[in-house]
Amino acid sequence: MPTIDLVQQSHQKIFDYLANHRLPTPCLVMDLEEVGRNFQALRSAFPQSHIYYAVKANPAQQLLNLLVSLDARFDAASIPEIQACLESGAKPHQISFGNTIKKAKDIAIAYELGIRLFAFDSLQELEKLSRFAPGAQVYCRLLMECSGAEWPLSRKFGCEIEMAKDLLICSLNMGLQPYGISFHVGSQQMDVSQWDRAIGSTAQLFQELLAAGIELQMVNMGGGFPGQYRSAVPAVTSYAEAIQASLDRHFGDSQPITMLEPGRSLVADAGVINTEVVLISQKSYTEDRRWVFLDIGKFSGLVETMDEAIKYRIRTPWDGQGYGPVILAGPTCDSADILYDQSDYRLPLNLQPGDQVQILSTGAYTSTYSSVGFNGFAPLAVYCI
Amino acid sequence: MPTIDLVQQSHQKIFDYLANHRLPTPCLVMDLEEVGRNFQALRSAFPQSHIYYAVKANPAQQLLNLLVSLDARFDAASIPEIQACLESGAKPHQISFGNTIKKAKDIAIAYELGIRLFAFDSLQELEKLSRFAPGAQVYCRLLMECSGAEWPLSRKFGCEIEMAKDLLICSLNMGLQPYGISFHVGSQQMDVSQWDRAIGSTAQLFQELLAAGIELQMVNMGGGFPGQYRSAVPAVTSYAEAIQASLDRHFGDSQPITMLEPGRSLVADAGVINTEVVLISQKSYTEDRRWVFLDIGKFSGLVETMDEAIKYRIRTPWDGQGYGPVILAGPTCDSADILYDQSDYRLPLNLQPGDQVQILSTGAYTSTYSSVGFNGFAPLAVYCI
Repeated sequence: MPTIDLVQQSHQKIFDYLANHRLPTPCLVMDLEEVGRNFQALRSAFPQSHIYYAVKANPAQQLLNLLVSLDARFDAASIPEIQACLESGAKPHQISFGNTIKKAKDIAIAYELGIRLFAFDSLQELEKLSRFAPGAQVYCRLLMECSGAEWPLSRKFGCEIEMAKDLLICSLNMGLQPYGISFHVGSQQMDVSQWDRAIGSTAQLFQELLAAGIELQMVNMGGGFPGQYRSAVPAVTSYAEAIQASLDRHFGDSQPITMLEPGRSLVADAGVINTEVVLISQKSYTEDRRWVFLDIGKFSGLVETMDEAIKYRIRTPWDGQGYGPVILAGPTCDSADILYDQSDYRLPLNLQPGDQVQILSTGAYTSTYSSVGFNGFAPLAVYCI
Repeated sequence: MPTIDLVQQSHQKIFDYLANHRLPTPCLVMDLEEVGRNFQALRSAFPQSHIYYAVKANPAQQLLNLLVSLDARFDAASIPEIQACLESGAKPHQISFGNTIKKAKDIAIAYELGIRLFAFDSLQELEKLSRFAPGAQVYCRLLMECSGAEWPLSRKFGCEIEMAKDLLICSLNMGLQPYGISFHVGSQQMDVSQWDRAIGSTAQLFQELLAAGIELQMVNMGGGFPGQYRSAVPAVTSYAEAIQASLDRHFGDSQPITMLEPGRSLVADAGVINTEVVLISQKSYTEDRRWVFLDIGKFSGLVETMDEAIKYRIRTPWDGQGYGPVILAGPTCDSADILYDQSDYRLPLNLQPGDQVQILSTGAYTSTYSSVGFNGFAPLAVYCI
């Protein structure tokens, strides 16, 4: 675990808090100052872009309050997320209803709440928007098949470019305002060059639509910026430079309005999960790996360990002393509740039941993924400091 | 979907209820009478066995109340599950603390609540039990590597037979009562013969321990009996016959006390999830499959679609009319929230947004897996009728 020194610095405030408060485990502690720093760093790196926080990454109300105070905007996936933003003081024009899969009644509620910016990727969705959000700004999500993302990207969102063009033309005839294009290159995207192809396709679509008499204004470049998990990640400035170079190359002097939808990169590194070792065992006398069972698992917040996609760093009271290979698993009676088996995790040989260990950079996509009570275990508690 | 006729019969009470009540979607409706029938059928098939309901499959309080009234016993995974059973009127001697991964403090709480039957599979766990549950009956879980189970079975639970023998001997010296052996052949186990090898190993262990002066009494044969998903499943009587034949073959005249821990087989077929089609779309003009998005997905109750392991049957208002291939997905902004892509699902061509469709045999491992609010969507509501 060579990165532990670096981690200890960035998470020190949370470690101190945990040392001074005997919080029941498991729990997630969020450092709001770190969220603020991450937001400002992203804003500095992308001074021209509107930054819409992807609420789904972590909707803790105190965190939304902070981001409202920093004049952030919000990418909401549902009516409850929109309401949480409004309750934190966000204005309707600061909120994008970014889910391409919306019930007609939810579109109507959002419109009633003042939301005027909506994502879509299909004719059916446009028909719903036309009826229940007349005159709203709409942007079409392009289907992108990118590599380099650690959390799987599927074909679930977006449509192909030919269809996007037709739908945007259609939207005007349906009484909507064709506003722009969105794409997403995949979450925890480690390859800064992945935005280039998408921006190129977007610029081409802007041209084609201009020829059809429609002047798009906005490019929503999604999120995808990483948290600091086990592998080193590029700096946010590297992403910004690559993306601005792409925008310059493909759009030249006619730069569009740009939106970003960061979630993970703002909150992941601002959170630490504190957990307790429940049991350390072996299955046989010949097995060379220990099984380490924690009081948190795949169904109480760590869903992103599915297929061992996201590899969190782990801090123990014995770091720096002798390590041995482990299989890391959760506390439920479910065979699938294994965090890491194939990913060569190693933990100190001194580790004992009752030891508290910290799972680092867990501020994103943990608390709300937590089950309501699988095996009777309570949902993950969240403390914002 | 050739099995729909059969399904319609067994789920008719729930369909009628849904037709007469405009419940918000998504929701799970449980038919308690069906749970009762399933329990009685299992009891009839296994008249000699103590049946411990695996509470984790569905801990709805009304369901626990019913099972208490039927004199069922309970396999609990945690203190909250134990408390739920006690609140439903179960007596402590009817409850087994079946999780092999327990905090010391939870063992102490269970003991204080009167629980005297505990599972273990490691020396560390025995040490905790010895200290916090002195004199309790303990049973050791054997590691089984079986095939034929649809929900993945890993090496997470149990230890190998040599270690089990030593641990059971050890337990006596530690002031505990070595009571028996448990094993599990995997959830949704379709091969009735899989119990035989486990029962054979268990009988061998009984013999070896008898030679060491320890007379075990009990074999916990776990669960594994199936729900009725897309493939036909053997009748419960087939399992009972195969298992009794194995017990006769391996134990002869010295039949042990037997425990069963059914979860899925008691409640899966007693539940139906009612959901609404949110969107049907295509990604391009050339794609031959429709994407059908429901208002429930992998993170709101259908976790068992992970890797498309459990393949639920689906009922629509247009069944029997023309079908076409679909990719079935949930409503969240998460690329991983796809239910079925590789499993050749076909749904009626007439299907439209707003249509209500039913996901059948969803009474097990759904409601408590549901996330607390991923993407802002509320946990799965449960109605017991």
